[in-house]
Amino acid sequence: MPRPSFKIPKVPEMTVRRLSIYTRCLAHLEEDGVKTVSSQELAERFALNSAQVRKDLAYFGEFGIRGIGYYVSNLRAELQRILGLDREWQVALVGYGNLGSALFRYRGFAQQGFRIAAIFDEDPAKVGKAVDDLTIFPLRDLPREVRARGLQLAIVAVPAESAQLVTDRLVAAGIKAILNFAPTRIKVAKDVRLKNVDLSIELEGLSFYLAQGVRQLPSPR
Amino acid sequence: MPRPSFKIPKVPEMTVRRLSIYTRCLAHLEEDGVKTVSSQELAERFALNSAQVRKDLAYFGEFGIRGIGYYVSNLRAELQRILGLDREWQVALVGYGNLGSALFRYRGFAQQGFRIAAIFDEDPAKVGKAVDDLTIFPLRDLPREVRARGLQLAIVAVPAESAQLVTDRLVAAGIKAILNFAPTRIKVAKDVRLKNVDLSIELEGLSFYLAQGVRQLPSPR
Repeated sequence: MPRPSFKIPKVPEMTVRRLSIYTRCLAHLEEDGVKTVSSQELAERFALNSAQVRKDLAYFGEFGIRGIGYYVSNLRAELQRILGLDREWQVALVGYGNLGSALFRYRGFAQQGFRIAAIFDEDPAKVGKAVDDLTIFPLRDLPREVRARGLQLAIVAVPAESAQLVTDRLVAAGIKAILNFAPTRIKVAKDVRLKNVDLSIELEGLSFYLAQGVRQLPSPR
Repeated sequence: MPRPSFKIPKVPEMTVRRLSIYTRCLAHLEEDGVKTVSSQELAERFALNSAQVRKDLAYFGEFGIRGIGYYVSNLRAELQRILGLDREWQVALVGYGNLGSALFRYRGFAQQGFRIAAIFDEDPAKVGKAVDDLTIFPLRDLPREVRARGLQLAIVAVPAESAQLVTDRLVAAGIKAILNFAPTRIKVAKDVRLKNVDLSIELEGLSFYLAQGVRQLPSPR
């Protein structure tokens, strides 16, 4: 049975990413016992842009109180709700090689409510093996397990050559949100959210600063 | 001998991230044989914000030509130079567990000029083992190998408990740019660039859309 389609509000992807960053900043403030914070204070402490903070939050409502700013724990709870972090998500992991097993052990996911509830791999040597309290399934079990376990998101951690095929099978099984780690371009239908993780971008965020520094000092050594 | 410190231009981190995204968009256009593009076309085709594109590029110069827009391959080359992708960087990988070995095999790094030129691990069972043409070194060899191999960036892929210690050793050995995968907060001196990879943020970029959809349909099933 096809799921109902829904209208997605036009919130820029970078705004969503910043909401995630704001929730982490607010968590730090809460740990430090801070009760209220202005957008200026938030911006100064975490090297953000205060106008950007206000603009990002304005997509979702009016959270600040004049003369006070934001109530830290309230705003954090609101942002968690907006990001869907007020519930547990059942996640399918496809590919149990080095990357797949590292992602399965990655503690950050469970902390935010993402539970890897099923693992799939096509390698006959892996299928049927137990990983903690899970058993590795072959891809053909996808439709059954998506229903049985209420899987909603999937992580693709297979080699680039298999990524499109795996994604097609996930979509056919009813998955609407896919995080792809394979360094290749994948196509999905318009009603499916695909996010590509490009780990090189993270390194480029560092080489930029090194390159800028090197450029300003013609002979740094 | 301490390296000279340098002044880093105040370019927002999000701008740097977007430059990486722009270079990828421009590569796709080049593949498709597109010679010139306006900021509007770029924005429409890749779901960007054209004013933001112009603002981001303005940090680095005047790249557009009135009535033409940007020359695709020129702009791409400029951005690659700005991001430091016009050279090869020698990268140290610390931690050769599941994540470390997955990162070593990650093809995206080499494509962008990031070469993992040395691997370090404290596990006596791993030290001395060959991985392709490299040998896994113990951490105490860091200062020597940083000099011998011209290592400039480091990837930290160790458990959270060891991440601060490893980072301190990297900084002591002269590394100025560190990409941390351990889900923990690390402190570094001000002249060191630290970037934390938080893979949950990527999943949150998906749960946001699912949560928004669910919210707009009170009973989605």
